[in-house]
Amino acid sequence: MTDPLPTGAIIGILGGGQLGRMLSVAAARLGFKSHIYEPGAHPPAADVAHQLTTAPYDDTDALSAFAGNVDVVTYEFENIPTSALDVIEALVPIRPGREALRVSQDRLTEKAYLQDLGLLVAPFADVSDAASLTSAVTRLGVPSILKTRRFGYDGKGQARLKSEADVGPAWRDMAGQPAVLEGFVTFTHEVSVIAARSVLGDVSCFDPGENVHRDGILHTTTVPARLSSSQRTDAVLIAAKILNALDYVGVLGVELFVTPGGLIVNEIAPRVHNSGHWTQNGCVVDQFEQHIRAISGWPLGDGSRYADVVMENLIGHDVDRLPALAKEAGCAVHLYGKAETKPGRKMGHVNRIVS
Amino acid sequence: MTDPLPTGAIIGILGGGQLGRMLSVAAARLGFKSHIYEPGAHPPAADVAHQLTTAPYDDTDALSAFAGNVDVVTYEFENIPTSALDVIEALVPIRPGREALRVSQDRLTEKAYLQDLGLLVAPFADVSDAASLTSAVTRLGVPSILKTRRFGYDGKGQARLKSEADVGPAWRDMAGQPAVLEGFVTFTHEVSVIAARSVLGDVSCFDPGENVHRDGILHTTTVPARLSSSQRTDAVLIAAKILNALDYVGVLGVELFVTPGGLIVNEIAPRVHNSGHWTQNGCVVDQFEQHIRAISGWPLGDGSRYADVVMENLIGHDVDRLPALAKEAGCAVHLYGKAETKPGRKMGHVNRIVS
Repeated sequence: MTDPLPTGAIIGILGGGQLGRMLSVAAARLGFKSHIYEPGAHPPAADVAHQLTTAPYDDTDALSAFAGNVDVVTYEFENIPTSALDVIEALVPIRPGREALRVSQDRLTEKAYLQDLGLLVAPFADVSDAASLTSAVTRLGVPSILKTRRFGYDGKGQARLKSEADVGPAWRDMAGQPAVLEGFVTFTHEVSVIAARSVLGDVSCFDPGENVHRDGILHTTTVPARLSSSQRTDAVLIAAKILNALDYVGVLGVELFVTPGGLIVNEIAPRVHNSGHWTQNGCVVDQFEQHIRAISGWPLGDGSRYADVVMENLIGHDVDRLPALAKEAGCAVHLYGKAETKPGRKMGHVNRIVS
Repeated sequence: MTDPLPTGAIIGILGGGQLGRMLSVAAARLGFKSHIYEPGAHPPAADVAHQLTTAPYDDTDALSAFAGNVDVVTYEFENIPTSALDVIEALVPIRPGREALRVSQDRLTEKAYLQDLGLLVAPFADVSDAASLTSAVTRLGVPSILKTRRFGYDGKGQARLKSEADVGPAWRDMAGQPAVLEGFVTFTHEVSVIAARSVLGDVSCFDPGENVHRDGILHTTTVPARLSSSQRTDAVLIAAKILNALDYVGVLGVELFVTPGGLIVNEIAPRVHNSGHWTQNGCVVDQFEQHIRAISGWPLGDGSRYADVVMENLIGHDVDRLPALAKEAGCAVHLYGKAETKPGRKMGHVNRIVS
């Protein structure tokens, strides 16, 4: 399937959170309909979708019906069970493809893959039990970070080792899950590149953004990022190398640590990415539309940046500042329609145009 | 009701075309859900709406159920039957209000209203039968335009009188409908102002756009429009005068003829307007969000323009140019998801960023 999908084609989206919601809107802008597959009730994406399937990822009948009703399947998160993907792929293309999911679902696989591509990654070691953790700490030292190989996001499934005394508690926190120990990297700041690759193999990158985290969750992304001209080129080359190696179709988020020794790949996400939300108010074609264009066989759009932007996430009760934000000049408000405000929950974001 | 609607509130929208569709998307961006009421099948707005009612405008039960399910009702077109509005208004606020609809549903009423406000309008005369048409032509001369008082749009319900010989056929074309004869106005070009007024009475106008029509349908809108500084001020003052007189809440489109003697009001539309589509890619807050903000009791947003834009409508088979348009730099594509391409049907539009 390389011909562009026609108007009225249906984009299947696994996951009904804010990313699925913004993908749905972008799909509509290009004349497509969206069908959301989501186990949870009242998903934010359903407010702007043509159709919703509420079913768990092990419901083979629901998965088959969903896959049979759509023209292509994409996803808003990478931790989709392999068994669900198998059911879907028998009926309809999944974009980005399985290889991107296989690599990014497992931190150990991902790091080895990136290293094999000749890219810099933090020193890492496989941790499968207490003994391998001890030997990993001996090799990589402290401080270091122990992370589950699978299902981690927004700082979840991670434990910092500040001294060797932390080794025991950290391993117990993993509750027996396979893990990876990452050595400490001294970096000045983190940037991310939101990159896209079309069905025909064309690659386009948005300007890198500079990320600031708070409590393990992305707080702000600022464009332009503080990068030298050569670092900017490197960032794009790194993203393009990964996209081409994976024969990728869609948008990929690449987080990079900026160090004196070069750009170190922190992690990749085979989907639209929180650090790319600024593109909604800084580019003619944003990351969501770029993703839909790619997976639908359209040419990539013009992702050049026309403004400086600071994206700020509204986490939990940050959203209580809405009355002031709604009045602020140059401030674009994006809310996700979540009924209940909870600490740590992403309720929305704002994009501030600063030039 | 002047408090801002909370996240999750439901915006009822009468009409499920492209304007309702883009209003739905804007509502979602502010955390609201949309409920579309539309008699026709498969309305474009349903692809991005939380809920859809398919029923005619004389179905009192369906109207009541719709009104009972939403927090405010707005509309994408002005020709809603009065009886339907009566049913709705008994249950929930309608914004913009009834006075705006009363005035704009009837060309004769509208012209008299604008004239009473001290604004310039084309010379006009009430035409209720063949005899009154003859006397109107004697007074206003030819060329002139005969228009139905109600239900006209995109050049429909209009007949040009080039000579007195056209009088008989033009009147027969009206098929007995009350009409208004408009005298010929010599103007250099047409501009429109998209203006908004909040629940608290704040007014904000987008930069005027310059409109070019083709076959009676809007073809392009270009911002900035060719206007002197004083004309620009006049345009805004005219729009504000109308908004305040109507105690208006929401977005209003005002079409103006630019003449050496001043700006003449051609017509007003109590809704988002095709000539305001450029705001989607030229402003932080576009006309759709501005409308939703106003009717939801939010403060108006920052509608200042950050780019020069040319909006081009894709009418009928214009949409066949999509493969080229999708690749064009600086070109934002907006499709309405209409299944069938028909001559004269608005299939989408593009916004070209030209600076």
